[in-house]
Amino acid sequence: MEKIAKQDTNFVIEVITRFIKEEVSKYNFQGGVIALSGGLDSAVVSILSHKALDGKIKLIYMPYENPRESLNDALSIAKLLELPLEIIDLKETATFLFSKVNPSNKLRKGNILARLRMTVLFDISSRDSSLVIGTSNKSEILVGYSTWFGDSAAGILPIGDLYKTQIRDIAQELSVPDNIIQKPPSAELWDGQTDEAEIGLSYEILDQILFKWVDQRYSILEIIKNGYPEEQVKKVISLTRKALYKQKTPLICKLSDRTVGIDYRYSKEASTI
Amino acid sequence: MEKIAKQDTNFVIEVITRFIKEEVSKYNFQGGVIALSGGLDSAVVSILSHKALDGKIKLIYMPYENPRESLNDALSIAKLLELPLEIIDLKETATFLFSKVNPSNKLRKGNILARLRMTVLFDISSRDSSLVIGTSNKSEILVGYSTWFGDSAAGILPIGDLYKTQIRDIAQELSVPDNIIQKPPSAELWDGQTDEAEIGLSYEILDQILFKWVDQRYSILEIIKNGYPEEQVKKVISLTRKALYKQKTPLICKLSDRTVGIDYRYSKEASTI
Repeated sequence: MEKIAKQDTNFVIEVITRFIKEEVSKYNFQGGVIALSGGLDSAVVSILSHKALDGKIKLIYMPYENPRESLNDALSIAKLLELPLEIIDLKETATFLFSKVNPSNKLRKGNILARLRMTVLFDISSRDSSLVIGTSNKSEILVGYSTWFGDSAAGILPIGDLYKTQIRDIAQELSVPDNIIQKPPSAELWDGQTDEAEIGLSYEILDQILFKWVDQRYSILEIIKNGYPEEQVKKVISLTRKALYKQKTPLICKLSDRTVGIDYRYSKEASTI
Repeated sequence: MEKIAKQDTNFVIEVITRFIKEEVSKYNFQGGVIALSGGLDSAVVSILSHKALDGKIKLIYMPYENPRESLNDALSIAKLLELPLEIIDLKETATFLFSKVNPSNKLRKGNILARLRMTVLFDISSRDSSLVIGTSNKSEILVGYSTWFGDSAAGILPIGDLYKTQIRDIAQELSVPDNIIQKPPSAELWDGQTDEAEIGLSYEILDQILFKWVDQRYSILEIIKNGYPEEQVKKVISLTRKALYKQKTPLICKLSDRTVGIDYRYSKEASTI
């Protein structure tokens, strides 16, 4: 029995690059803009976008107090793509904003930083007529391991339907440097943070449970019968339920026959004047 | 023939207050948080939320270089509700961020400010366990007169299905001070800005065309035959089409059987563990 969907790596790369190319040209953007963090997901998205858009991408690095190693990893991707890395230091801006709202814990600080980064990315989108290409993956979207209107906010999400463990295979095919593939994933919202410690599960187990629950529509009992500890299964499913609100647009109180987000939702392409 | 849907003002107030109460309790929030701008929409949302939540709301005013009159109007609403107005001045934070990204025009500056305000509101949401209650209305949502992931980002949008001209009736019923009802609507993204000058139409005409196009599903030709100038009709409809992307979650490249935002969308309430 497959633990997670087998994928044809080259086919996936082909589909994603076409997707990026099509979305950028459909909305008449000149290219794309991507926040490089030094991590796996942004490395993969940058390389795919570079392929899709003949290099017409901007790579942005927005440190607060991030480790030097992250900058080095971001630089190595920029070098691989022979592109400059634009560094926008958020230290002073964040420090001023922190002084206004006094965030009492690291989660609040982390969410503020994620939203400041989104703010900068969309400003660069406007500056350069570039589509914001987000780096969220299916694992983190499903369990809500992201900041609403922060890192999950983008024009498009090219790897949003790939689990973290699937992205590692894509990264190998794309020749992402080994140390970026191997290092423990981290949102870097604070020093020493790792995704797996915070979620409380390895991505291997998380992705397998998510795949069974979401893609294969197994029941909770069936997943447990497949050998996954009850406690872990219930934890993952509880996280997916708590995360659902982040996958929606804000709920509008329905008062008319046609309400945005409810029964007024058309494709931009559906018609022209 | 009705120019815009007739509404039973008291019924609308009843529905919205129930909606706010239900959403806040469903997600176990302690109350709500609202950005007061001094304008009509935030005044109405504050009064409705105050009714719905027995006063358990926080009112936040976040100036950059806003006119003194706006602060006075925000204060008058806080006074009416016998609540404090929390002022979080964004001048220094925005100035620092501007120095990093050099926004070359007022639209970029305005979008940055809208996103900074969203960032602060969601931080207060976390601080006080309060639901962010947004103030977007149907007119501005439909024509995209808002900042994506900025002022349109909220937990809920209680008046998101009411046109601006309908909100004026509600405001009168709720005893919003006359000068707030009468003053020209402004996003206050820059000095002297008014919505109507920027959109290029009065809200009366805009709302009537939108009502015919969206709610009544008239064709372009039918709207023109009803006496609206062709140029204005085409402009409004063009705006609604360009705004559609703001009413959606970021598009994910589909690669699996169940993709977030496409065929994986459940209600939080659908099931419990």
